Amino acid sequence: MREVAGGVTAAPGILAAGISCGIKEGSKPDLALIYSVVPSRVAGLFTTNKIKSASIKVSMEHLANGRAQAVIINSGNANAVTGKWGLADAQKITKLVAAQLRINEEDVLIASTGKIGVPLPMAKIASGLKEIIGRLSEDGSQEAANAILTTDTFPKTAAVEIELDSKPVVVGGMAKGAGMISPKMQATMLAFVTTNCAIDEGLLRKALVRAVDRSFNAITVDGAQSTNDMVLILANGLAANRKISKEDSSYQVFCRALEQVTIRLAKLIVKDGEGATKFIEVEVRGALSAKEAKLVAFSIANSNLVKAMLYGEDPNWGRIVAAIGSSGAQIEEEKIDIYLGDLKLTSKGCGIKFSEEEAKKILKGKEIKIIVDLHLGEESAKVFTCDLTPEYVKINSRRTL
Amino acid sequence: MREVAGGVTAAPGILAAGISCGIKEGSKPDLALIYSVVPSRVAGLFTTNKIKSASIKVSMEHLANGRAQAVIINSGNANAVTGKWGLADAQKITKLVAAQLRINEEDVLIASTGKIGVPLPMAKIASGLKEIIGRLSEDGSQEAANAILTTDTFPKTAAVEIELDSKPVVVGGMAKGAGMISPKMQATMLAFVTTNCAIDEGLLRKALVRAVDRSFNAITVDGAQSTNDMVLILANGLAANRKISKEDSSYQVFCRALEQVTIRLAKLIVKDGEGATKFIEVEVRGALSAKEAKLVAFSIANSNLVKAMLYGEDPNWGRIVAAIGSSGAQIEEEKIDIYLGDLKLTSKGCGIKFSEEEAKKILKGKEIKIIVDLHLGEESAKVFTCDLTPEYVKINSRRTL
Repeated sequence: MREVAGGVTAAPGILAAGISCGIKEGSKPDLALIYSVVPSRVAGLFTTNKIKSASIKVSMEHLANGRAQAVIINSGNANAVTGKWGLADAQKITKLVAAQLRINEEDVLIASTGKIGVPLPMAKIASGLKEIIGRLSEDGSQEAANAILTTDTFPKTAAVEIELDSKPVVVGGMAKGAGMISPKMQATMLAFVTTNCAIDEGLLRKALVRAVDRSFNAITVDGAQSTNDMVLILANGLAANRKISKEDSSYQVFCRALEQVTIRLAKLIVKDGEGATKFIEVEVRGALSAKEAKLVAFSIANSNLVKAMLYGEDPNWGRIVAAIGSSGAQIEEEKIDIYLGDLKLTSKGCGIKFSEEEAKKILKGKEIKIIVDLHLGEESAKVFTCDLTPEYVKINSRRTL
Repeated sequence: MREVAGGVTAAPGILAAGISCGIKEGSKPDLALIYSVVPSRVAGLFTTNKIKSASIKVSMEHLANGRAQAVIINSGNANAVTGKWGLADAQKITKLVAAQLRINEEDVLIASTGKIGVPLPMAKIASGLKEIIGRLSEDGSQEAANAILTTDTFPKTAAVEIELDSKPVVVGGMAKGAGMISPKMQATMLAFVTTNCAIDEGLLRKALVRAVDRSFNAITVDGAQSTNDMVLILANGLAANRKISKEDSSYQVFCRALEQVTIRLAKLIVKDGEGATKFIEVEVRGALSAKEAKLVAFSIANSNLVKAMLYGEDPNWGRIVAAIGSSGAQIEEEKIDIYLGDLKLTSKGCGIKFSEEEAKKILKGKEIKIIVDLHLGEESAKVFTCDLTPEYVKINSRRTL
């Protein structure tokens, strides 16, 4: 497996484009299109928020047949809590894209991100659609990745190449994140992955679920859950490998490639968390189950107090202890070891003397690792987050009215 | 019922004192003592964090006989995650207090708040105990209330007087809060309530549970749960009212008085939330159950995005919608109405046109009310919180090392 350039268009047969159509102010890019030259197998995961945007609803419906050929994405407007009018708008957009690309309406998926409760500027989008289709290109990865951003500060892309049956198979993708990033959902932001792999629909979905569990569902910026989160994968089969139809070694190789791309995109989202200055990895070991390990890891990773302490570069591990104890997972206080990087802070649930020098050095770093060993079982989990900074609050207190 | 002065010593037969014994730097007050001239009935609620401080463990044990006469409280050191040595220290302190006051060791309760994982400075505390006992006074409310504070910016006291069987009955108390204030526990900070009411032990506990549910368990500052939270009530019976032994009208009157004191203290905690500039009330109506109403209210009140938006005085109600949808409670999107004070923002789950002028005016206020009507049932809940500010992050990122 090797990393390659090209992001979401790295796989042969995938084109993309990104433009500004006027949803956002100041000619910022706000419309992206992904297109596969042939119909693709598709799998998707959507927000588990009980309030879902119109785009989510339409995409869930169009995904039902397991096939897709295009994904239209707008930023700057979430098309959520917009009632039946919002739903009609989302349907109209997929119809327009289908008509112009001469493909089936059900093969067009739609995603949105931005402000909630505002009607889409349909005239601007309709004229934007004409423009964007003319721009579709196998070099369109960067402009598409830019057009899906909101408060993100840089575009996020990743791609790898593997070999299956002596054929080059590429998995590539793009994502946006920054705010409203949290665990409790199937998908935590927008991410679009494409591949030329030939793979059975059920296995494509299974591979996506597994990859998302270890990537997008293992990150948190602020514990908030959006109405619009979506992860899609399109597999157009053009690699002409023997179609993966069981969980054999080819499937495992494909899974690893997909995981590499999704974990890379997920880490980029955390690194670009609103106001973030540090990347934090929380690893919990020795739990009774993987679920409990993740519960403890997320309780730490979502604690405002822990995250503010890491911003301040202070080894006040009592806050980690409080987060472990309130996680809901089974623990035994007198067994817990906590490490900051390689430095042991507590042993058997009791604070121990450690080098303040060493602690300060570790905390000054841009990437910090917290390890908790519960010493109860064999299961573990890794979660990625960022620090909480005054800048996060400033970004999220900016007036939108 | 009328408000009276005197806080935790407002009830006859209750003395208190507060001093600096050197746990904190700079001669800041850090040791408080409450003493009832006769043994009292006692009820208490403790943190549900699975990691509990030594003080919590000792107090839970001493509370088992339903009787108490003194409460010793230190700030500046949590005596948590301090192992068996911490436990021995807490026991030694209650023993010293008991010996000097010539009361039973089991009738002394202990509470601590401050940094986790640091051994108590026992020599300083032992010499402080001698001093504080000599200072016990029925005017000691203010100095005791000051000595239990950590990052709080002002002392918190409240007291009311009622009449039962033509006898004046007083309920008074003090509390500390500021950070690590959250729902998921029985008690969310330190609060000590005293009364001269004669009341059966079981009913005292029942009244406390009910009052805490509507006060300390209905507030959140940062969703963090401490290892040290404790709410105690001591009832010394000196009012000589007919002892309350069933849920009659006297019990109801007592409950209302107790609720008034605990709600007042809880609101003071929120107003003094770390870095807070605004007091927020979230009311959820029309829920299928009181539990679900509270779930939705806390999901909104704990959302960093909602709280930062209120700091920024921005009516970006989409964030309220996202918090409702991810609360886990049953909802129907197309039924939800959201109000900012009297101003309707969404109707039947859809954004409506509202006066931006009016919204800005409401958001400029120091006290803001958010009302959500789910239109599913008859149950409701009220929760109190504060805004999230850059100052909160700054306070919690200060180095302690």
